[in-house]
Amino acid sequence: MQIPIKNTNFAAGKANTVPAVNSYTYHTMAQKPSIPKGTRDFTAEEMARRNYIFDTIRDVFRLYGYRQIETPAMENLCTLMGKYGEEGDKLLFKVLNSGDFLRGVNHQLIEAENCPRLAAQICEKGLRYDLTVPFARFVVQHRNELQFPFRRFQIQPVWRADRPQKGRYREFYQCDADVVGSDSLLNEVELLQMIDEVFARLGIRIAIKLNNRKVLAGIAELIGEPDKLIDITVAIDKIDKIGIDKVNDELAEHGLKPEAIAALRPILEISGSLQERLATLADLLAGNETGSKGVDELRIVCDAVTALGLRAELDLDVSLARGLNYYTGTIIEVKAIDVAIGSITGGGRYDNLTGIFGLPGVSGVGISFGADRIYDVLNTLGLYPESTAGSTKVMFANFGTAEAAASLQLVQKLRAAGIPAELYPDQAKLKKQFGYADALAIPYVAIIGESELAEKRLTLKNMASGEQMSVAFDDIVSTLTN
Amino acid sequence: MQIPIKNTNFAAGKANTVPAVNSYTYHTMAQKPSIPKGTRDFTAEEMARRNYIFDTIRDVFRLYGYRQIETPAMENLCTLMGKYGEEGDKLLFKVLNSGDFLRGVNHQLIEAENCPRLAAQICEKGLRYDLTVPFARFVVQHRNELQFPFRRFQIQPVWRADRPQKGRYREFYQCDADVVGSDSLLNEVELLQMIDEVFARLGIRIAIKLNNRKVLAGIAELIGEPDKLIDITVAIDKIDKIGIDKVNDELAEHGLKPEAIAALRPILEISGSLQERLATLADLLAGNETGSKGVDELRIVCDAVTALGLRAELDLDVSLARGLNYYTGTIIEVKAIDVAIGSITGGGRYDNLTGIFGLPGVSGVGISFGADRIYDVLNTLGLYPESTAGSTKVMFANFGTAEAAASLQLVQKLRAAGIPAELYPDQAKLKKQFGYADALAIPYVAIIGESELAEKRLTLKNMASGEQMSVAFDDIVSTLTN
Repeated sequence: MQIPIKNTNFAAGKANTVPAVNSYTYHTMAQKPSIPKGTRDFTAEEMARRNYIFDTIRDVFRLYGYRQIETPAMENLCTLMGKYGEEGDKLLFKVLNSGDFLRGVNHQLIEAENCPRLAAQICEKGLRYDLTVPFARFVVQHRNELQFPFRRFQIQPVWRADRPQKGRYREFYQCDADVVGSDSLLNEVELLQMIDEVFARLGIRIAIKLNNRKVLAGIAELIGEPDKLIDITVAIDKIDKIGIDKVNDELAEHGLKPEAIAALRPILEISGSLQERLATLADLLAGNETGSKGVDELRIVCDAVTALGLRAELDLDVSLARGLNYYTGTIIEVKAIDVAIGSITGGGRYDNLTGIFGLPGVSGVGISFGADRIYDVLNTLGLYPESTAGSTKVMFANFGTAEAAASLQLVQKLRAAGIPAELYPDQAKLKKQFGYADALAIPYVAIIGESELAEKRLTLKNMASGEQMSVAFDDIVSTLTN
Repeated sequence: MQIPIKNTNFAAGKANTVPAVNSYTYHTMAQKPSIPKGTRDFTAEEMARRNYIFDTIRDVFRLYGYRQIETPAMENLCTLMGKYGEEGDKLLFKVLNSGDFLRGVNHQLIEAENCPRLAAQICEKGLRYDLTVPFARFVVQHRNELQFPFRRFQIQPVWRADRPQKGRYREFYQCDADVVGSDSLLNEVELLQMIDEVFARLGIRIAIKLNNRKVLAGIAELIGEPDKLIDITVAIDKIDKIGIDKVNDELAEHGLKPEAIAALRPILEISGSLQERLATLADLLAGNETGSKGVDELRIVCDAVTALGLRAELDLDVSLARGLNYYTGTIIEVKAIDVAIGSITGGGRYDNLTGIFGLPGVSGVGISFGADRIYDVLNTLGLYPESTAGSTKVMFANFGTAEAAASLQLVQKLRAAGIPAELYPDQAKLKKQFGYADALAIPYVAIIGESELAEKRLTLKNMASGEQMSVAFDDIVSTLTN
């Protein structure tokens, strides 16, 4: 067997270079490469860590009987628009129609520089903003093929034209599990167990906060402001950030009467253990049907997960609203106990998500893991297992044609035994070859030089300890298996 | 422990419905849901099959020491434009700038309806068209953090505004492995082994066709038309589709002299075994330095993979050009032997890909698996293993509060033992519950009714055989493990 020889650059003509630039304002020759702001490349080291998170979440989703789906990155804009509020509409990335996108466009819009209306005429598609709306669209579109209750999980990137800042990106992954077509609170129980299991596997201590939209509605009714439910939830959701006085200022601005604000205060100041809080809340909402139903639901869920044994701290937080108007029952939020980073997982029940696509009366409940924040928490706490480093177990150094040929035979044997192995492809200086193995955290380097080749024994170096041992060619698989 | 009870729809006010539509031409109420043409949803069944393909490819990539990276879906348009030819530029999906995208735009372009130039002013970003150009950008941008030779793999979707047709989509996955920073032909050898291994694992019989750009250049020189290299390669690449006579017509149209076309014919008609073809080609190109070097490279690669034992058929095909001008050495194409579907994997060596981003002299070679066509081949041949069906091993039927509570405890035990299990969340009719398990191909259903609960024994039904057995609660894990 012959082994190469250098493959020198080939200069047979300009035909072999990348075709000449053919664009307008795009300058491509020797440009300094960059990526759009708010987006990221992931190196091999980062990918290994991210895969550790995704694999952990996926394993737990599957263990609980959730089944994976995927939806396209682009959705029709009519699917996305109006689903995330006015702010959300502005944060959608819109995709320009192909070809002659100006044909038939109203030029008055252009002269008036009416960007939103013009965008609606020249863009039919947008990038998905979350996984929930595409999921609702999927359920309606495929309803005749699906089995209900439908437990699905989905791990895909989403895009938002948010102002990029530390920890906030324009492209990021969501990891969602939802079940639709069942209004049993057992689903909430299982989702909480899944949260508990994922973070136990990752080694992150967490506190789970629960609330229920019916409790919020009951409170609004109780204080005589049922029409101000949204203003109340938006304001009290900020209590952790701005404190109760500023929340009260905001409520007053929204026209809440002083006696309503005063009536709200004791509810927001409920304290004690989970059972004590539930009892106090039950007392306060005793006369209110909606609120009492919310408290009942909270109690059923808390009792069930407690009976099954939850490792996470479980709390009731009546200020929790998660700013999402589509929640109608349970609301869930998870925080890391040992790192101050905001919510790392959230979710809740929604009774009307598919209604907008023509399928009313389908109740659903779901959770969403924030992979990027979990990544930061694991980094901060140094919780990655060692195995998330490189996967190659042994690199064969390259000493030239004959030695490389012998090495390749052994590399092939190792791979056949499932052991990731590689041969350094070039006959470079040994220092360079060892530097490569070292930088990639490859634990063993195998050396087959002239004398090793003659004796059919290789020298195996443990890169961590520096120890070397002589191993017969025939014993390499068993040596590296142990 | 209390177990729910129905969670009836909550009608506390309109605040709980999705916010009202706020858009222009987007109609959202009860719209018939759909997705953009050329894109696809993947159901749980389809995802299981796709994951089987991706996992197989990924496992082989890792076994060979390739390391995963990911790049953003959106690249700056200046990174993408001019890299795929004039046709490619038109097929790029462009993303509209956020906010006031018309500010500063030249209105004359609009009046002239000059779409390409206007697009360049209102769009800075585009969706990636392949994984190769983003990879080249990545290598240059991160060159100080990388170890060379850099073996990377990448499995991500790409987007092209192609006319959708059977088997051609606007969003599809590519699975690429490339090594840059090494011009050793050992890399070609390993990539061919990887192709062989992936398809052996999938059970697909393949033929690998090889060519070398230097052979093509040598042929162009030999027939006295070195400047027509691109026209020649583009034309002869179609020989399988349109036949040699039409290829010759096309060459004549491009101004090739009749004696050049006549001289080309015997080269295109080379036949025999791989070794015979190599020998004939070597003879024909004997006087030509470039062509001979190409033949030498082909021979080295073929001899090495043959010595290591390739299961795939290996062929030489001098008409193979893959239409990609950036290849400078080896060219690889893979076809399924048992299904007529075109190329299912391809690749080659390029010596100048990073040059356009300011890093010349980095040689690379890579392969790309076409996941969608492989999916179609596996479907056609019925080659999916059974395990790609659902993952849940046992579903517990739901007979009511007390029975469900006991079931949940057992479900939890099973999950702790790594056995995917689920409890049907609602106390629905048994026929419905069994229908669900059947439709999802769940192999076992566990029944805990009143009498089973009293005796602490469940009834386990094998859904395939219909057999039922009685199992003590304490034995459920060991029963389902065996």
